[in-house]
Formats: sequence, structure tokens, C-alpha cells
Amino acid sequence: MASLFRSILALSVATAALTASANANELRETALEIFDPVPSTLPALEGNPVTPEKVELGKALFFDPRMSSSGVFSCASCHNLATGGDDNMPTSIGHGWQTGPRNAPTVLNAVFNEAQFWDGRAADLAEQAKGPVQAGVEMANTPENLLATLNSMQQYVDWFEAAFPEEGEPVTFDNFGRAVEAFQATLITPAPFDAWLNGDDAAMTEQQVEGLEVFINAGCASCHSGVNLGGNGYYPFGLVERPGADILPPDDKGRYQVTATVDDEYVFRASPLRNIAVTAPYFHSGNVWDLRTAVVVMAESQLGADLAEEEIDAVVAFLDALTGEVPEVTLPLLPAETAETPRPTGEVLE
Amino acid sequence: MASLFRSILALSVATAALTASANANELRETALEIFDPVPSTLPALEGNPVTPEKVELGKALFFDPRMSSSGVFSCASCHNLATGGDDNMPTSIGHGWQTGPRNAPTVLNAVFNEAQFWDGRAADLAEQAKGPVQAGVEMANTPENLLATLNSMQQYVDWFEAAFPEEGEPVTFDNFGRAVEAFQATLITPAPFDAWLNGDDAAMTEQQVEGLEVFINAGCASCHSGVNLGGNGYYPFGLVERPGADILPPDDKGRYQVTATVDDEYVFRASPLRNIAVTAPYFHSGNVWDLRTAVVVMAESQLGADLAEEEIDAVVAFLDALTGEVPEVTLPLLPAETAETPRPTGEVLE
Repeated sequence: MASLFRSILALSVATAALTASANANELRETALEIFDPVPSTLPALEGNPVTPEKVELGKALFFDPRMSSSGVFSCASCHNLATGGDDNMPTSIGHGWQTGPRNAPTVLNAVFNEAQFWDGRAADLAEQAKGPVQAGVEMANTPENLLATLNSMQQYVDWFEAAFPEEGEPVTFDNFGRAVEAFQATLITPAPFDAWLNGDDAAMTEQQVEGLEVFINAGCASCHSGVNLGGNGYYPFGLVERPGADILPPDDKGRYQVTATVDDEYVFRASPLRNIAVTAPYFHSGNVWDLRTAVVVMAESQLGADLAEEEIDAVVAFLDALTGEVPEVTLPLLPAETAETPRPTGEVLE
Repeated sequence: MASLFRSILALSVATAALTASANANELRETALEIFDPVPSTLPALEGNPVTPEKVELGKALFFDPRMSSSGVFSCASCHNLATGGDDNMPTSIGHGWQTGPRNAPTVLNAVFNEAQFWDGRAADLAEQAKGPVQAGVEMANTPENLLATLNSMQQYVDWFEAAFPEEGEPVTFDNFGRAVEAFQATLITPAPFDAWLNGDDAAMTEQQVEGLEVFINAGCASCHSGVNLGGNGYYPFGLVERPGADILPPDDKGRYQVTATVDDEYVFRASPLRNIAVTAPYFHSGNVWDLRTAVVVMAESQLGADLAEEEIDAVVAFLDALTGEVPEVTLPLLPAETAETPRPTGEVLE
């Protein structure tokens, strides 16, 4: 993995060797080889066609705290669409006031990530959605209890039937994940950087354009590429210089916990950077609140680069250009419990 | 208080002695002496003019989890507008996974209550809003920390200035309460009962109309009157027969805790009944999940009435006619934290 990273780095530094005098069109051409603007239409989901009915169901499920055993947490609790799609905490507080092991990533544009979670242990959002629901430190539910909850409310059964019209028994845990994924496919945030990529020179400031050049030339773009400027590959954190234990706690070995391969020790998915300016704190440990500091940590630990102050400022300005327009979301109206609905419990489900 | 209650009861039973053959107009006339439909315009708030700017600010504050010290809870956590304006729990889970002492009431139509909380300890919603923010078992914040949070984000300062344009220093804890109250004034849910009161005979079923008659004749309407069918007076729980300790826990003496007057032992505000069918569980203890059971408990404990099965069914059907249309609420987009924003903490603030 590390050697693959070095090859990509060398290749991209070579092909992207830009001078400060490169004009906007040349820079745009280079940028379009590395990045992609968000599409103007909903992304297709493999094996999960997005329909309005599925999106509506997914929205209801996303906002329903009864998907947790305690009735306290919904997906929206830690992935708050009012605050950048995350929860502004180092690591989330979950069931029983336990704290989670890693910083909650934003759901905005998550559909463009090639794998989910900091260690990429879920291949897509449909698989990902089933994780926090069952995690003991998060929503602490079981698939059985979740399905009993859904089946106890006729409105939910009707919604599942409308969302999965060809299935005889549509209320399943897999379909729960598919519906949540379909809703998340709508959570796309076009940003000034997209307008610039699409040809609008005025969409980014001069400093932001300079920052983009630094971002490419210094090598940031080697890992932070594609639609999401990240989210599409795994890299060792501390490739050049390992950051302090507050930022890279020694007991979280990252992707090693998924693959049990020594090469994957302290390997994490490159963080997607869209809306990064509004989704502090940073890194999987969530211990850095300041974006400028995060940029410096990355430059030193991953690139061994000693950027000038103006270069750092420019990169931060460029990252601001990734803050996008969040789609308007109206709260769903959820069905009321019935006599059959499992009751919320703050205890641990058996 | 108890004797006042008995006078009202006698008066209302006398004036409202209807026979089953009373026609709809007669019943409506009687009902209009006891109840009021929700108004078609926003209610005026004493000393707190409702402006669009204030409503928008109040909505942002209502949904912002950074109003709690932990960053976990917003007003919307326990007063979830997706689930009837409450949290579907016996008593809420708050800071440090503590459970609150009483069931969270709905915010829907709360503006029509004459006093707030189960013991009426807040005169209005502007005062009420400041309570949960500071309660150690709820949001566990301090006014100082809350104001530091708001002042750290320029967008909030701008919003306060727009909402309170005549004040030099508008970011105050009192204005926090006023803005939240202004937002809550928009949370009004016209129901079939309102359409019926307004003259539409077809808005309620025959059984619901029968239920209304029982509701008046049996004496329920003596305490559950006005716009909210409750929320406007204090009555001893267990006036005729004290319910079991699961429903009326002996250590919660209700309004006695506010007035320290022996007459107020186990006295609570009559619960407002709008949207009661979608806001289980019931009573201040939140231990009754079934609306029919709640009706029977009330009939026995407050009226000493032994209602026939069909009468109970009719009352439950009538209560269903109080489930109103919840206004569409779009999620606010909240400002991002800055370097000055106090960081969330799961510990107890000093």
C-alpha cells in the first residue's frame, strides 16, 4: 500500500508540475484530470435504483430515533444535516453515554466515497447504514428489534412496499440499508470549486486558485482526488513522519483491524475533503479543531513538506471553496408507535 | 384548588348536560363555550412580537445541539417535530445518560398553554426555554457557556441583531428564550376537531362526535378545556381515587415543589390533549403507553366514573380527532464553530 502510494505520488507530481504562471485554463485542464465536479443528477447506486419512494422512506429512517434501542439516537444525531452532516465532536457520544472510537464523518457527498468508514470496512452506504445501528457504543440496536419496530407501524410497512414494489416481504434489514443509501444519494453539495471546474473563473478567488495549485503541486491531490477529494484510497497516516499520539492514538491501527495485514497498520481511508471547513474537528481521532493546523499536520506527516505560510493560507482558502450548498431538507413526519412497537430502553438489548 | 375544581366540574356538568339526541349545532354551541379552535393566524406573544427574523433565529436555536454542553442534545432532541413534538419515552434521557423526572410534553401548540411544565413553573415559553438548557439532567449548560457559544459565531450575532433590531446588545439569554418562543408560536396543528368546531359536520365521524359528548358529559372537559383541551389549570392527580405508584410515583409531589403549599401536593397541570394519540406514553410519569388505558385511569381517578366500553371507545375516537396537521419544517443550516466556540464536553460544566 505504501509503495503504491509513492508511485501515485511520483506520477502525479510529475504530470501535475505546474508553475505559478499557468493560466486558469491550463490549471483547470490539469485539475479535471485529478478531480471531478459533483454531477448535476443523482448518482446511480449499484443494485439499488433510486426512486422518490425509496428516498422518502430513507429520509424517514434516517431521522427516526426509534432505530436505536434507546430511542435517543437517529442517524441524524451524529450526521446532523443542520451542521455539515456530522456532529462537531471529536468522537460521538452514543448509547449509555459511551464515546465512539473515531470521529463521525459527514454524510454529505458520502455517496461518492469508494468505501465507507475510516477503515473502509463497508463497501457502500447500504452496507454502512447497518453498522451504527448495531454498534453497542452507537445505536445499540439489533436487526430483529429494528424490524419489529418497523413492522409494528403500518405506515412503515406501506412505505417499504412502495419503495420495493417487486418484493413480497420488503421490510428487511438490507432494504433498510438500501433506503438510507438512496436518501443519502440526494445529499450532494455543489460548491464554488465545482463552478470553477465547470468553467466559471470567477467562482474561486485568486487565493483559492493559488491554493489549488499548491494542493496539486505539493502532492495533497495524490490522495485527495476524485469527486470527493478523498474517500477513494487507503494510505498510512504518518507516511513521512508520524504525528503525535493525540492525533494518531497508538491503539487504533486503522485498516489493520479489517485486513489483519501488517502493511495496513495505521492505514486509513484518505478523508474526503468536501465541506471540510464546516466539519471540524479533524482526523479519525477528532482532536484537531483548526483547519490550518490540520493542513500543516498533513503536509508534514504525509508529504514531508514544509509549506510557506502563504501556501498554507492558500490551501485553507482553497478548502473553503469546497463548502457546498446543502440541499433543503424538510423533516419527515414519522408514524406513531403502536401497542406492538418495542419500547425504548436505555439498557443493553439482549 | 381542589374545591375550585369541584365548582368548575359541577358548573360544567350542569350547563353541558346534553342528551344523545342533541343535534350537531346544539353540541357545537356547547362545545364552543368550552373549547376554542386554533386560530388561523399566529398567536400574539406578550412582550415578544413575532417577526420572521425572530422565528428563523428561534428555529436555528431550537435545532442546535451546541446549546447543550455536550453537543448531543438540542431542544429538538426531546421535542422531536418528526414524532409529534415529543420523544416517545417515559422520561427523557439527557446529559450523562441520566433520565429526567417527568415525561417530555409536546411543543406542538404549547404556545396556547397558560403555563409551562407539568407543574406550571414557567409562565410562558420564553421562560420555559431557559429551563432544559440549564437542567443538569437535560442539556446541562450554563447561560454563560451558551452565550459564549452564540457570540463565537458571527452568523448568530447577525441573526440576533436582525431579530432584536432595537437592542444594542441583543445576544442575551432572555432573547434566546424569546426567539425559541417565537419559533414555537408557529408550531400549531389544526385538526379535524377544529374543522368541526368551525362548522364542518363531516370533519368528525359519528363515533368521534359521540366521544365529544361523553367527554363533556362525563366531566373530562372540566379540566381539559380551552384551545388545548388542557394546559390551563392545576388539579390534583387522584382527586377521586389515587392511581398506582407506577402512574403517580409518591416522591413526585408536582406543583407542591413550586408552591410548597400542602394543597398543591400531587397537583399537576391538566395535560393539553392536542395530538395526544401520537404522543404516548402518558402522564407525567410516562408509564402508560395505551391511550385507552389512559382514558380509563383518568375517568376513575379524576371523575370516579365507570364509563361503558363504547363510551371509552368513543372518547378515544374523539381524541384521535385532535391529531392535527404538523407544519412543514425545513432544517436550518447552522453556522460552523470557530476557534472561540466552547468545545463540547460530556463532563459536567463548572
